[in-house]
Amino acid sequence: MHDEEMVGLRRKRRMAQVVSLTSAVIFLWILLYGASTVRHASRIALIYIVTPTYTRPSQKVDLTTRLSHAFQLAQGIHWIVVEDSDHKTTLVANLLSRTGLPYTHLHIPTPGHMKRQPHEKPWAKPRGVLQRNEGLRWLREELQSSNNLDGFLYFADDDNGYDLELFDEIRIIKRVGVWPVAFVGEVMVEKPLLKDGKIVGWDVAIKPEREFAVDMAGFAVSVKLLMDHPEAKFDFDQPPGYQETYFLKGLGLKKEDMEPKAKNCTQVLVWHTKTKEPVLIQEKILNRKGKHTDEGMEV
Amino acid sequence: MHDEEMVGLRRKRRMAQVVSLTSAVIFLWILLYGASTVRHASRIALIYIVTPTYTRPSQKVDLTTRLSHAFQLAQGIHWIVVEDSDHKTTLVANLLSRTGLPYTHLHIPTPGHMKRQPHEKPWAKPRGVLQRNEGLRWLREELQSSNNLDGFLYFADDDNGYDLELFDEIRIIKRVGVWPVAFVGEVMVEKPLLKDGKIVGWDVAIKPEREFAVDMAGFAVSVKLLMDHPEAKFDFDQPPGYQETYFLKGLGLKKEDMEPKAKNCTQVLVWHTKTKEPVLIQEKILNRKGKHTDEGMEV
Repeated sequence: MHDEEMVGLRRKRRMAQVVSLTSAVIFLWILLYGASTVRHASRIALIYIVTPTYTRPSQKVDLTTRLSHAFQLAQGIHWIVVEDSDHKTTLVANLLSRTGLPYTHLHIPTPGHMKRQPHEKPWAKPRGVLQRNEGLRWLREELQSSNNLDGFLYFADDDNGYDLELFDEIRIIKRVGVWPVAFVGEVMVEKPLLKDGKIVGWDVAIKPEREFAVDMAGFAVSVKLLMDHPEAKFDFDQPPGYQETYFLKGLGLKKEDMEPKAKNCTQVLVWHTKTKEPVLIQEKILNRKGKHTDEGMEV
Repeated sequence: MHDEEMVGLRRKRRMAQVVSLTSAVIFLWILLYGASTVRHASRIALIYIVTPTYTRPSQKVDLTTRLSHAFQLAQGIHWIVVEDSDHKTTLVANLLSRTGLPYTHLHIPTPGHMKRQPHEKPWAKPRGVLQRNEGLRWLREELQSSNNLDGFLYFADDDNGYDLELFDEIRIIKRVGVWPVAFVGEVMVEKPLLKDGKIVGWDVAIKPEREFAVDMAGFAVSVKLLMDHPEAKFDFDQPPGYQETYFLKGLGLKKEDMEPKAKNCTQVLVWHTKTKEPVLIQEKILNRKGKHTDEGMEV
């Protein structure tokens, strides 16, 4: 073998090494970067969202377009939907499976005597009590067998509107976070009253004397706190407006424990909306003649 | 140099080549796969969505949670929001910039004499006429200077609910697509009547004699068709319920041109919802005392 040949061989070898090393470095970088993205996604603490729901014309559109779209964009959500029904409906089952979200589908009917009667005021009897408790039962069982208590619990009613930033705020809670809610208590915004960054009361028009004058949509807690207080739940026999106070007291909380979120409670990130019942005058006339415009269709 | 040394050197060189080639192949595969994903996203035909909107308590929550979340998930949307106002509002400007969507923010006020008077029925005067026409004006100008007429035009009112599948259906339209709409015309579902897969009429309770008895949310057209008929627009002087018919006739269309979408018009992918006006009894009492619960807050 000639010396020149040797030199050429060594040069080629060095070249091959450089190419292989560069490729390998780039390859590894992509691999690690990709993995870190995946790791990051799996590292997000889960928000378990409990949503009580019931059958009505706008149920599908409310759950789909006000809730599931927000949850899909927020990511890291486990949706626990509890139907007020004696069975799981196909409508809700289909809807949940189409979201692509991790979810749990439950049901428990509210007995007739616990339901509001036509002559009673809308707030005379609390709604969603048994459904929220059923969600809590499932969640506690689930967490019992898991060794990850990094998550959060939030109650999201099925017709409210949720800003995506709300979920970022929930993920920085230590034990319990609280924030303003729009269109509740007959005012534009119900919100906590702050002094020196601490919550000292409630800026609400109705029943400000409550220990926690906060709407169901206005707080979230860590699941660790939930597990530390296995008895905390909702109760049908509380006076109107006292469900939130009863639950939060059950978690051993005081007003001073509340962590103000949403820029010191100056931002609205959740709206207590209701969908107008659709006008169905012509539908009812057709129904009397045996015709249904939604026959064979899921609305 | 010994022969064994040469053999070892050649083996190492071959090894280095194999490693470098494998790395390079994997690297290229990742690079090309990534690029193809990006290419795919940029290849989606744009859907230009025109949304007329007006100031009210639920404007932000409606636009954000019913529309922008759906559009973010659907992708390939250019949102044209036209305010019925004599200026662009900060609320809508902030909202749009936060969506991350490509958007165009316009405004045009409806003069007082064209607005519904308190004694008039809700349908006595058409709404959003000038705003939709302003959206059309902008879109035609935009398309004039673009050489891409692959897109679509859809009118999305600011409080309806949109299933994500609707946008997939719009993207397979040739000239004009049509589908059912829920909660409109006082029935559960207004929909086209089909015979042998062709549209032969309209299954609606109110004014079925219209050439196009379809709600604003029930059709979309290709932007090419729009550009071929530069005069097509909405008109304040049409009888109630005839805006859609007037616009579609302006595009030179006949009933037979309509392409039935949403599984031969058997699926509901859009709901004509309205948000209930919030109860603000206590707010009004506070306002009289000079207090506003939303002072300094954007609701």
